[in-house]
Amino acid sequence: MKIDQLETPVPVIDLDRVEHNLVKMQAYCDRHGLKLRPHIKTHKLPVFARRQMELGAAGITCQKLGEAEVMADAGLSDILLSYPLIGPAKAARLAALAKRVTMRVAVDNPVALDTAAAAAREAGTEIGVLIEFDSGGKRTGVTSVDEALALAEAIRAAQGLRFDGLMTYPSSAETARFVAAAKQRLGGAGIEIKTVSGGGTPNAWAQHEIEGLTELRVGTYIYHDRATVGAGAATLDECALHLHATVVSRPTETRAIIDAGSKSLTSDRVAPSVGEGYGLILEYPDAIIERLNEEHGILDLSHSARKPAIGERVRVVPNHVCVVTNLHDEVVTMRGGERIETLPVAARGRTR
Amino acid sequence: MKIDQLETPVPVIDLDRVEHNLVKMQAYCDRHGLKLRPHIKTHKLPVFARRQMELGAAGITCQKLGEAEVMADAGLSDILLSYPLIGPAKAARLAALAKRVTMRVAVDNPVALDTAAAAAREAGTEIGVLIEFDSGGKRTGVTSVDEALALAEAIRAAQGLRFDGLMTYPSSAETARFVAAAKQRLGGAGIEIKTVSGGGTPNAWAQHEIEGLTELRVGTYIYHDRATVGAGAATLDECALHLHATVVSRPTETRAIIDAGSKSLTSDRVAPSVGEGYGLILEYPDAIIERLNEEHGILDLSHSARKPAIGERVRVVPNHVCVVTNLHDEVVTMRGGERIETLPVAARGRTR
Repeated sequence: MKIDQLETPVPVIDLDRVEHNLVKMQAYCDRHGLKLRPHIKTHKLPVFARRQMELGAAGITCQKLGEAEVMADAGLSDILLSYPLIGPAKAARLAALAKRVTMRVAVDNPVALDTAAAAAREAGTEIGVLIEFDSGGKRTGVTSVDEALALAEAIRAAQGLRFDGLMTYPSSAETARFVAAAKQRLGGAGIEIKTVSGGGTPNAWAQHEIEGLTELRVGTYIYHDRATVGAGAATLDECALHLHATVVSRPTETRAIIDAGSKSLTSDRVAPSVGEGYGLILEYPDAIIERLNEEHGILDLSHSARKPAIGERVRVVPNHVCVVTNLHDEVVTMRGGERIETLPVAARGRTR
Repeated sequence: MKIDQLETPVPVIDLDRVEHNLVKMQAYCDRHGLKLRPHIKTHKLPVFARRQMELGAAGITCQKLGEAEVMADAGLSDILLSYPLIGPAKAARLAALAKRVTMRVAVDNPVALDTAAAAAREAGTEIGVLIEFDSGGKRTGVTSVDEALALAEAIRAAQGLRFDGLMTYPSSAETARFVAAAKQRLGGAGIEIKTVSGGGTPNAWAQHEIEGLTELRVGTYIYHDRATVGAGAATLDECALHLHATVVSRPTETRAIIDAGSKSLTSDRVAPSVGEGYGLILEYPDAIIERLNEEHGILDLSHSARKPAIGERVRVVPNHVCVVTNLHDEVVTMRGGERIETLPVAARGRTR
């Protein structure tokens, strides 16, 4: 079946571009002696996680236990959970996973540490722990080396936990300073930092410049999007996922409506310097997707010399591709304009 | 099971509040002689659609064919598709539905009209058509009475199509002016406008003041959210869906992280006059959900005298509840703090 016969809106993935992106990032990591631990949150597809492993990844990264469960079921056997787990229910699920596959988990506070320790006890096995620190992103992560030392000592004292090192997101110049200070302080306490895991596609190609980094967690690089292109991490031709949509209404000379709204693209924006609106339309780059309702993408055609007709199909490069794959039960893979297969997005919607 | 034992993040629906909201809107419509045609996009649950019908609704509204298919499968028998359908695939699906249940469809252009006509031919039955017009919302809808007349004449001439009237969203003072002009022009051509369908929860309680309106399409009123409360259409106590979340990190004195990010809440904002951030935390109303990543809600606690501890559970009133139900495979219903059941969100993700 030709791609232009598929009902819209539909996310379509170019397999050649995916392969190009996967090979390119693995080669970058290999060249610089970095381990690559791809984040599956972008694709949520076992088939691509397995391909990432075949190409040389050290393991995968998941954000939530539900994603890790899907990936373990699909045969992925080395998983980092880059998210603080809290409470007995999460501990039980982590333990169940740790009995089946190699699990590591990130913590940034004593409650998450207790959860990991409970899981290790219940699993009767060892769970590796990374301490998350803040490199300036102001999200999760300890903000001082003192806190890192206290957590590392608590991990060393906890039965069943193994201190593996540090983790941060996104990694930046600040990362190196924290790592150097932590190596000195923890080293003084006889605690070795084996792994320093950084992440983030926008700055991926500069990660080898960060002193001390041993591992790279990146997700978006498999598909890329308007944001990573805007950050200079990819070209538009490397964007592997397009949302195909149809023009369903042309109420005025300067307005068109496409059948892709926030339920297909989300309301995520990009920096004003990158572009306006809710995505880039390849066929009409001067059209602005100025508003989204759930099923309506409202296009301002004022600056577009050519204007689409009702029924015409367009391809949208999403602002942020990770959230797009989470909205769709299925994605279509293609090669050379021909549909290859329709894949269920196995780890979609796993928020817990 | 107690609600506070459920794993988070989880959308929890208060059944008493749902019933209150449904009864109140039906009573409003009854009092003013308006037909109520609830939009199921907010709940996406057959059980609530059936309850809306039991309480007196004239039928339901769906945005996409996929939603209508789910509702028809669940026994709903009178459906308005308030969205322009384009092309043979959509026509075939509309025809299949029209053979099973009473279908109406909105159009605002000749291509959508051709699609409806093709469906009627294929179904061998009559399909009712509403012409969508623009009341100032600048989305879909014809912008002139001339266009409405041309479409109405084309509908009259088309085999299998029945002209039922007009539709707009959101309805406003502008609606009455368009309707009055259309009644004159179409009446002059011998075409009667039986139905004038308006919509929108924020202004729902003022719809009886719009001259000529016969039907109200509202969706959000079943749950309400921060936006409809901000618009004065509901009180906070009428909000029936809360996203329950857990504090997973407290990196600094003024920052907390909850396990509900854009994958649970979406990036939809409310007007600055309504409030800041990505939702209202009932337990900490002065905390601001200032940023969202997919799994992280980042709270600014600067203005919150009390501050939550790691592991504490909070309830978030979403900015826009319709998009939240679309993100979750399941919702939990409760009464008096006790879980009643877990419901699959049957029409979730039906973008086509």
